[in-house]
Amino acid sequence: MASGTLLYAQSGGVTAVINATASAVISEARARKVKVLAARNGILGALREELIDTSKESIASIRALAHTPGGAFGSCRVKLKSLEQDRAKYERLLEVFQAHNVRYFLYNGGNDSADTALKVSKLAAEFKVPLTCIGVPKTIDNDLAVTDCCPGFGSAAKYTAVSVREAALDVAAMAETSTKVFVYEAMGRHAGWLAAAAGLAGEGPDAAPHLILFPERAYDEADFLASVKKVVERVGYCVVVASEGIRTADGTFVADAGGGKDAFGHTQLGGVASYLAGKVKDELGFKVHWTLPDYLQRSARHIASKTDLDHAMAAGKAAVQFALRGMNSTMPVIRRTANAPYKWRIEAAPLDKVANHEKTMPANFIRKDGYGITAAARAYLEPLIRGEAPPPYGRDGLPKYVTLKNVAVKKKLPAWEG
Amino acid sequence: MASGTLLYAQSGGVTAVINATASAVISEARARKVKVLAARNGILGALREELIDTSKESIASIRALAHTPGGAFGSCRVKLKSLEQDRAKYERLLEVFQAHNVRYFLYNGGNDSADTALKVSKLAAEFKVPLTCIGVPKTIDNDLAVTDCCPGFGSAAKYTAVSVREAALDVAAMAETSTKVFVYEAMGRHAGWLAAAAGLAGEGPDAAPHLILFPERAYDEADFLASVKKVVERVGYCVVVASEGIRTADGTFVADAGGGKDAFGHTQLGGVASYLAGKVKDELGFKVHWTLPDYLQRSARHIASKTDLDHAMAAGKAAVQFALRGMNSTMPVIRRTANAPYKWRIEAAPLDKVANHEKTMPANFIRKDGYGITAAARAYLEPLIRGEAPPPYGRDGLPKYVTLKNVAVKKKLPAWEG
Repeated sequence: MASGTLLYAQSGGVTAVINATASAVISEARARKVKVLAARNGILGALREELIDTSKESIASIRALAHTPGGAFGSCRVKLKSLEQDRAKYERLLEVFQAHNVRYFLYNGGNDSADTALKVSKLAAEFKVPLTCIGVPKTIDNDLAVTDCCPGFGSAAKYTAVSVREAALDVAAMAETSTKVFVYEAMGRHAGWLAAAAGLAGEGPDAAPHLILFPERAYDEADFLASVKKVVERVGYCVVVASEGIRTADGTFVADAGGGKDAFGHTQLGGVASYLAGKVKDELGFKVHWTLPDYLQRSARHIASKTDLDHAMAAGKAAVQFALRGMNSTMPVIRRTANAPYKWRIEAAPLDKVANHEKTMPANFIRKDGYGITAAARAYLEPLIRGEAPPPYGRDGLPKYVTLKNVAVKKKLPAWEG
Repeated sequence: MASGTLLYAQSGGVTAVINATASAVISEARARKVKVLAARNGILGALREELIDTSKESIASIRALAHTPGGAFGSCRVKLKSLEQDRAKYERLLEVFQAHNVRYFLYNGGNDSADTALKVSKLAAEFKVPLTCIGVPKTIDNDLAVTDCCPGFGSAAKYTAVSVREAALDVAAMAETSTKVFVYEAMGRHAGWLAAAAGLAGEGPDAAPHLILFPERAYDEADFLASVKKVVERVGYCVVVASEGIRTADGTFVADAGGGKDAFGHTQLGGVASYLAGKVKDELGFKVHWTLPDYLQRSARHIASKTDLDHAMAAGKAAVQFALRGMNSTMPVIRRTANAPYKWRIEAAPLDKVANHEKTMPANFIRKDGYGITAAARAYLEPLIRGEAPPPYGRDGLPKYVTLKNVAVKKKLPAWEG
């Protein structure tokens, strides 16, 4: 039996299945008699010594976590800087860990979180503090290096493909006398993975989505408008899917509706669909509608992918196993071993191969004309949205999502003046 | 056995279950050996003599229609004017009906369609043409008179409540360091039914959605912003649901993003959420996100309400029965006979009680402060989102929606010069 406590924390934008990872972490640790604390609001809770005792949660609650979206312990958008710049914070983390006998730190997030876990592990080594740091993958953006895909992406991808297929049927039915061009805005700052997933909604030149705009290709307005016009003339209507991060050839974001920057220094986006719809209306005169699903696309647990759920839980379980084996500074990643039938397994990747890298789509995933996905992209994407894993529903017609008690652990240190 | 053909047409914005009504109409008519034609793109197809022979569709396809969103034969936004103003069009309709031995006309739509069906029936009587006209209810807006609720609304309501519950979990997890105010824009030009349905997502002052803005109450910006601030201070974040049709005290729409007017003369809306989010950001300084689900909310068959599906199919079946019984100028409506347990039955309502009326929410459905729903509203709404009716999924992870063959009937008349 392992001695020492495991600390689990969630970081960055949440997903439909990050709590499934949490559920698997806690279940696996319980099976191995390891105590699990969770940090409230990610690394912030660790700094503030705001820790949650997960042993107060019932088995039923931990099981229900696996079908509950959001981030059950709270997540955060806080990026620690280098060990030199933020040394006091890293030292504080080690202090908190030691005060609560934390020997295993599992940080569930994207590449920024992998970077944080790696730095904590380096400082622990420097101070000769016994600590095993594990990054646990999570992001709807699917932009993590090494891993074949990221838990969270498959469910957002399924939401996207299903929503676009459904809305396209609506538009097709009404196009004769109403909306002719419909624009769907998909999340994805720098990588067009979710926009690409929309391509699964239909195949062939006349099937929606007719045009997909990727951040990997420069947005050329004249060409885009001409393409929309051609599709409407040929098909009667046009469904466009645009990645929020599309940019013109000079690197300017097409729309920057949020206008600010978040704590990671990323530009806040939001207005691409509305911009494109406005252009189509003004320049081509077609009646337009657009949608900005925003958070709905990353929290839609009701339409989660079973494959994605399996990945999320397997990653959580493996993270605990890696931790207990002392596989410091690693991340459980998904390795695809076959496409048809789809097969995969969990492997360990060194955190430094993941931290601060960003995976964009391979060039051969985007059609030559730049407006669609290739057969290679389909072969990659399709297994990831496969299978359904609906939550249980109550008699009130709503999914039965759990709210944890989140009982705070008594603080042992002076308040943090961060 | 009835002699004569039944013509079925879809009108106005489509819903997740209007095809379920179509499926029930065709099945019931087939069982009674009545031939069913469908008009392509609603009344427009009838005017143009663009008719579809539904007997060419397999039993499996007609069954699959019941789980396929959109409008399988095409719908339209075309409103006929008075019998005097549009007399030539009404006469043309009768001409087409007679050429194809149409004795039963089923028009599946909202109050404008009920009005059209009523006028056609009046002209048929004037010309002594044997024709039974039936309105079949459909609208996500839930604004039809007489009927307790409208097929299509329950599924859009379930989509709304589920989506708001899910997004609220996302916002709650991130609020400490990210988005503090989230705004969801619900469809509904003049009636706040869908916005009200969002209220089912949570109960009590601290549960999301914290503030609902109804078109039935004047939008008071100072009061709204003060309310948002209070909720954020108390709860840590604030989820707002706004009906697209909210107006200030002087009757001005808060946002009119579409800017134009449709064929019905309705103002096109779209930008309420973005407007409110902008105000919250500028005036209160909170980080905001917003969503505009747009067509996704009315085409999301994957999260349809079983109750709504049952209503839609029962209305279709009853419409055929009413037609064959010669119950001219009626509409099958839903009568609620008990709330707990929920019970309902189909009754016949005269079309003139439905045509051109609009049902807004009862005043006692809106909380005194104007920002939430009452227990009475919950008791009314909850049964309508109850039960799940997921479509079958393919091995590709997508719902198996059917595409009909839509074989055209040979034209018998000269082209329409409308």
